[in-house]
Amino acid sequence: MFIAMNRFKVIKDAAEDFETLWKNRESHLAGMPGFVEFHMLRGPEREDHQLYSSHTVWASREDFEAWTRSDAFRASHRGAGGTKPLYLGHPEFEGFDVIQTISRD
Amino acid sequence: MFIAMNRFKVIKDAAEDFETLWKNRESHLAGMPGFVEFHMLRGPEREDHQLYSSHTVWASREDFEAWTRSDAFRASHRGAGGTKPLYLGHPEFEGFDVIQTISRD
Repeated sequence: MFIAMNRFKVIKDAAEDFETLWKNRESHLAGMPGFVEFHMLRGPEREDHQLYSSHTVWASREDFEAWTRSDAFRASHRGAGGTKPLYLGHPEFEGFDVIQTISRD
Repeated sequence: MFIAMNRFKVIKDAAEDFETLWKNRESHLAGMPGFVEFHMLRGPEREDHQLYSSHTVWASREDFEAWTRSDAFRASHRGAGGTKPLYLGHPEFEGFDVIQTISRD
């Protein structure tokens, strides 16, 4: 299993706009091979930003990489820049391999 | 839903020891109220460290907070310091509220 995360340092005044943008976007993930689940996460508030992280679970790293090369990926990210800056710097990508799992009893 | 993560900047030579320590520890999570799933994640390799993140999914932030006040939590973290430094600085805690979910078709 592989988890792809993008960390966004959102300008505090723009947090509501950022959430609305994500909630209203057209997602192309649901039908992708190996896609398991997507979450948008609201993290801790820091001095100059509110942390958010997208969080996508894939069956494997290869499934994630195939998605980044797909037409659906390009369609999803078209116009992602928008017209108004919502966050500080660029989103920071981090990919994680699951090396241990504990499930509930 | 709430996701609790702890980010560890692991010294590169200590990555194997770090993984072994987590795999062999006694976890007290499985029976906790509101516990959903735990993963240990291996993230990107950076210049001076290998990023790892623990990743625990809880039904709610309240369930997570109740766990941090439990005897099981104290038992889990007893001796967590160990005898040999495995990572740079302290683990960095970040708690995330799930604000949007997309599941597969």
